[in-house]
Amino acid sequence: MAHRAGIVGASGYGGVELLRLLDGHPAIEPAVVAANAQAGEPVASLFPNLTGARTFDAIDVGALAELDVVFLAAPHGVALELAPTLYEAGVPVVDLSAAFRLSADGFTTWYGESHPRPDLAAGEAQPGEGVVYGLPEFRRGSIRQATLVANPGCYPTAALLGLTPVAELLTPGSVVVDAMSGTSGAGRAAKDHLHFAHVHGDATAYGAPAHRHTGEIERWLPGDLGAVTFTPHLVPMSRGLLATAYGTLRDDVTADDVEDALRSAYRDEPFVHVLAPGTFPHTKAVAGSNGCQLGAVVDPRTRRVTVTSAIDNLGKGAAGQALQNANLVLGLDETSGLSAIGVYP
Amino acid sequence: MAHRAGIVGASGYGGVELLRLLDGHPAIEPAVVAANAQAGEPVASLFPNLTGARTFDAIDVGALAELDVVFLAAPHGVALELAPTLYEAGVPVVDLSAAFRLSADGFTTWYGESHPRPDLAAGEAQPGEGVVYGLPEFRRGSIRQATLVANPGCYPTAALLGLTPVAELLTPGSVVVDAMSGTSGAGRAAKDHLHFAHVHGDATAYGAPAHRHTGEIERWLPGDLGAVTFTPHLVPMSRGLLATAYGTLRDDVTADDVEDALRSAYRDEPFVHVLAPGTFPHTKAVAGSNGCQLGAVVDPRTRRVTVTSAIDNLGKGAAGQALQNANLVLGLDETSGLSAIGVYP
Amino acid sequence: MAHRAGIVGASGYGGVELLRLLDGHPAIEPAVVAANAQAGEPVASLFPNLTGARTFDAIDVGALAELDVVFLAAPHGVALELAPTLYEAGVPVVDLSAAFRLSADGFTTWYGESHPRPDLAAGEAQPGEGVVYGLPEFRRGSIRQATLVANPGCYPTAALLGLTPVAELLTPGSVVVDAMSGTSGAGRAAKDHLHFAHVHGDATAYGAPAHRHTGEIERWLPGDLGAVTFTPHLVPMSRGLLATAYGTLRDDVTADDVEDALRSAYRDEPFVHVLAPGTFPHTKAVAGSNGCQLGAVVDPRTRRVTVTSAIDNLGKGAAGQALQNANLVLGLDETSGLSAIGVYP
Amino acid sequence: MAHRAGIVGASGYGGVELLRLLDGHPAIEPAVVAANAQAGEPVASLFPNLTGARTFDAIDVGALAELDVVFLAAPHGVALELAPTLYEAGVPVVDLSAAFRLSADGFTTWYGESHPRPDLAAGEAQPGEGVVYGLPEFRRGSIRQATLVANPGCYPTAALLGLTPVAELLTPGSVVVDAMSGTSGAGRAAKDHLHFAHVHGDATAYGAPAHRHTGEIERWLPGDLGAVTFTPHLVPMSRGLLATAYGTLRDDVTADDVEDALRSAYRDEPFVHVLAPGTFPHTKAVAGSNGCQLGAVVDPRTRRVTVTSAIDNLGKGAAGQALQNANLVLGLDETSGLSAIGVYP
Repeated sequence: MAHRAGIVGASGYGGVELLRLLDGHPAIEPAVVAANAQAGEPVASLFPNLTGARTFDAIDVGALAELDVVFLAAPHGVALELAPTLYEAGVPVVDLSAAFRLSADGFTTWYGESHPRPDLAAGEAQPGEGVVYGLPEFRRGSIRQATLVANPGCYPTAALLGLTPVAELLTPGSVVVDAMSGTSGAGRAAKDHLHFAHVHGDATAYGAPAHRHTGEIERWLPGDLGAVTFTPHLVPMSRGLLATAYGTLRDDVTADDVEDALRSAYRDEPFVHVLAPGTFPHTKAVAGSNGCQLGAVVDPRTRRVTVTSAIDNLGKGAAGQALQNANLVLGLDETSGLSAIGVYP
Repeated sequence: MAHRAGIVGASGYGGVELLRLLDGHPAIEPAVVAANAQAGEPVASLFPNLTGARTFDAIDVGALAELDVVFLAAPHGVALELAPTLYEAGVPVVDLSAAFRLSADGFTTWYGESHPRPDLAAGEAQPGEGVVYGLPEFRRGSIRQATLVANPGCYPTAALLGLTPVAELLTPGSVVVDAMSGTSGAGRAAKDHLHFAHVHGDATAYGAPAHRHTGEIERWLPGDLGAVTFTPHLVPMSRGLLATAYGTLRDDVTADDVEDALRSAYRDEPFVHVLAPGTFPHTKAVAGSNGCQLGAVVDPRTRRVTVTSAIDNLGKGAAGQALQNANLVLGLDETSGLSAIGVYP
Repeated sequence: MAHRAGIVGASGYGGVELLRLLDGHPAIEPAVVAANAQAGEPVASLFPNLTGARTFDAIDVGALAELDVVFLAAPHGVALELAPTLYEAGVPVVDLSAAFRLSADGFTTWYGESHPRPDLAAGEAQPGEGVVYGLPEFRRGSIRQATLVANPGCYPTAALLGLTPVAELLTPGSVVVDAMSGTSGAGRAAKDHLHFAHVHGDATAYGAPAHRHTGEIERWLPGDLGAVTFTPHLVPMSRGLLATAYGTLRDDVTADDVEDALRSAYRDEPFVHVLAPGTFPHTKAVAGSNGCQLGAVVDPRTRRVTVTSAIDNLGKGAAGQALQNANLVLGLDETSGLSAIGVYP
Repeated sequence: MAHRAGIVGASGYGGVELLRLLDGHPAIEPAVVAANAQAGEPVASLFPNLTGARTFDAIDVGALAELDVVFLAAPHGVALELAPTLYEAGVPVVDLSAAFRLSADGFTTWYGESHPRPDLAAGEAQPGEGVVYGLPEFRRGSIRQATLVANPGCYPTAALLGLTPVAELLTPGSVVVDAMSGTSGAGRAAKDHLHFAHVHGDATAYGAPAHRHTGEIERWLPGDLGAVTFTPHLVPMSRGLLATAYGTLRDDVTADDVEDALRSAYRDEPFVHVLAPGTFPHTKAVAGSNGCQLGAVVDPRTRRVTVTSAIDNLGKGAAGQALQNANLVLGLDETSGLSAIGVYP
């Protein structure tokens, strides 16, 4: 019998992607599809890919507490309200917001609010039991035992998949992450800067030097690499995220060391694929999927390594990874309902 | 045990979409992935979404004849060569080319060649046994018994799904089909007019008034509606096809008659969805899927009905429909490995 | 000395395009740049192409009445208010809204409001003195004498440039206009359906069968061709408009007649270019310009002619044509500050 | 009387942009429009924005030597052949290729060929008389006297405009340039990776760590900043180039120093505009123009400055800057025929 899941914040892009993915999932069904502001409206009115009569539910914590897993795809304020109750009730939660990714202090620094439940902040040195930062490639054991999974942000997912295996090869203070994302990463709300006529044919940076994902990258990058410079860009795609990360190699580290570190980290991973040296990943290769493709080059002149990572910001960068985490939490095959093969061309 | 399939012409967009779909299919596996010019090359070198070591096979008719089903996703010349042999051998073939869609005479008229095997031409009044034009919504019974399925063209699929249910309500000579497609419909070959810099921000008509799909629409449109005016356009999308079809209503036909005809035709169809009157379908709602969405309006001033149909030209317009046909031929669930839910946004 | 112009509604796309064009105009300067809601804000805050310290002015009818020409690029309600005063004061007005394009009755039919000044409605059989529908290719003599120019809509401009020369060759009731536009045609307001993530990779019809431009096309199409079926589509471009118009030829009319009619109509026109038969115009060829390119084909099987017209919806479809009209009104070279050469690629 | 110009390589994107710009130039006319492979073909067959009967000329050095200025918009091999003859003849040349941008040794390092005329290599410490690297903002005096102008590459133009004013504030070895360009930067030739279906919705890095423009940036960056890490990306735009450059500030350098350096460098420049701190430039703001917009932020945590520069790769990054250089060489107003206002939206 299928596991019954709830999606809170189902009117956003993360929510709709979860609905699409669960439609093809053999063992999880979306029992509750909640979005307060749209309660009672047809899902198809917001998402024309989802035909049929289903309407959005109102958020009802009691009903959510009866489910087998709850995805929180809402703003972090909503997650801060709902997650503690579900956690106490022992209901597994995968939270796609930033509410629990950092330490309590880090949350205050980057989000400007005090954290109501430091014990549930995955970024604490000693978080509460069953609380985990959900990057499965590096902590799937803990995720299998988790009650509260802080699903990583889109930029941190790409940056960390690229940098984690090589982190110990780099010199502190040398890391720069330059990244670009499609507009779905900015959410569904109609805003002037997201008007098609403004984004079409346009590229721009934004949020630097203090985009909130900077703190998340720094928190979860292994080793003592210090502060990271991070610049996100908006480019004319709907989906897709490419992170190009730079770091200076420690003395004696070779290009082969970099290659070996990446290959050994991901040899058996179902969703992460390391390309041949000198080959660069394409976001479109993983569009609509949970895949991540990585490519790295070393410049002997500057002693810098450049790692580029391609993901779908709504896939491995949000809903896909959330489902991967839910599969682990529920004891299912980690790849259930997911693919690493993008819709290409 | 899985059915063993062959894909001929796997280096084209129809071929790669079949590979992507079969990766998620529970009962058909791609045993042969043939592309003569690329034989021995990695599939991933052409299609970065398909990682792994698989290489293209050479075309070997003997090997194909051992399979459970063969998809021909190659130019019609290749299909004219291979299909007869496989047909004689009793191997089910789904041909994505135009080789067998028309009558032999129609083929000569629109493709400028004589047809070597009129008995295999699905458009003949009495085609050979097991030869069928594969639009499942209107002839799935015959497809289940078929050996050679002529998979419809992309524009005809969209136009026929929109017009067939209302054809008997229209006056002869009144049908105009105006359509637009993404560039994947033009194939993978690098051509000047498909350069990103030329298509980006551009729209243009092409091929009118004698695009080859005109003949296919006329052949399979029920009733005696006569010659059709058809104008395709190239618009800046990778995937997606929208057909806007016009016809003048016969006297006494009402808007409700049109609505009823469409609804009753597709009430139980898994892949075709009729939108509420006054709502127009979006190609993105079915992107990457086998879905078709339809919307119709009647103008009392001109007595014309306007039906718009949205499909993915590589989905319901090519590989998706081919897999739907293969499911039928092999006695599987018609929807196996397919979805009507597009990747949105 | 330069003519002093005012732009009302300068915060919209038509307004900013006028500012861009006037920056390169040798004899007209934008003395007033009015936008009530944005008065006092920097123009550059809305339009990053326009750097510098200029701010939006408030609308002041007295100040406008001192100018040499006023462009109304605001909603038709604003135009209905301002134009009469300026007209009485003898100040030439080019109105980009729909306020004065139809007859008073036509305005009521298509816009649902009664018209306050039928004498200023250009679509009346006998409009007031100096009131004219501003399609220069067909009435530049009257425009030179005009005080109030009703600047044509974007779709009507493309459709009428394509159909007017051949109108007398067509049978009544046979005209269908199928068109597509970039999103700038829908205006600057941030709306859900204009979000980049929704338009990217998407095509859809809208507004049929009663889009307001239908009435404008019917009003200005010469001859007695009757009601027209018109379907606009939104395609993923920022600028650009392509109209594909269909009509059935009268008996004895030949393809050469069609070709001759188009060539003789536009032989000496600086902005309209008729392509060789069988060649189809590209919107990108006229992007950012005031050009229009036309192509026509005749189908002997259906006796229909298909004429496609490409314009920039903000150029010949709005601001460019408005400037062309202003040049005429002010006695300047009609092409001053304008080009027919698009930004390609 | 107009100066007579020649364009060699007029069938490429740089060439067509020169033709478009010269059409609106008051004092330079394109007397020769040469493209060997297309000689005799209509220009309009390649560039639909350029209607009319003009055909491409064959390359004839004798004819070029009669002109007032010659633009070489051809591959560097052609420039290496033609430029010396024209230089000896005293005909001013603006070369858009890389032939003369570096030192002879630098050319060998980055282009793998020995340089036939080191005296004409602008990157030599002491180049021949009248040979200059044509970045007008930093050496317009020399350009006014020049016979051979090496027009900068697109990426170097953006990177150098951003970094030159702050170069002395940075620590050696700290510079990283991460940049993205539209596909027109890759040239007109139809290639698989430039197919619309592959670029649409895709972002990817390429060419790192040894893209040829790296050497050009290093050569012309003032001070002793050492080797630079440079990664270009291809993003789904036709035109537009955004460079995001990083450098670590020397001790005691403040954010105000950075701001002052940029403002004082460009205070009186007609084409370069420094945005308010924290504001990031958009490529679309300068699309189709010769403008460059710059924005800079300093991160106190990492002591890095991030400077982003937006240009049109065919404008300030190629043909626009070439015309700016030609204006200087011919003693015309530097801004003649050029604008800093992009086509927006």
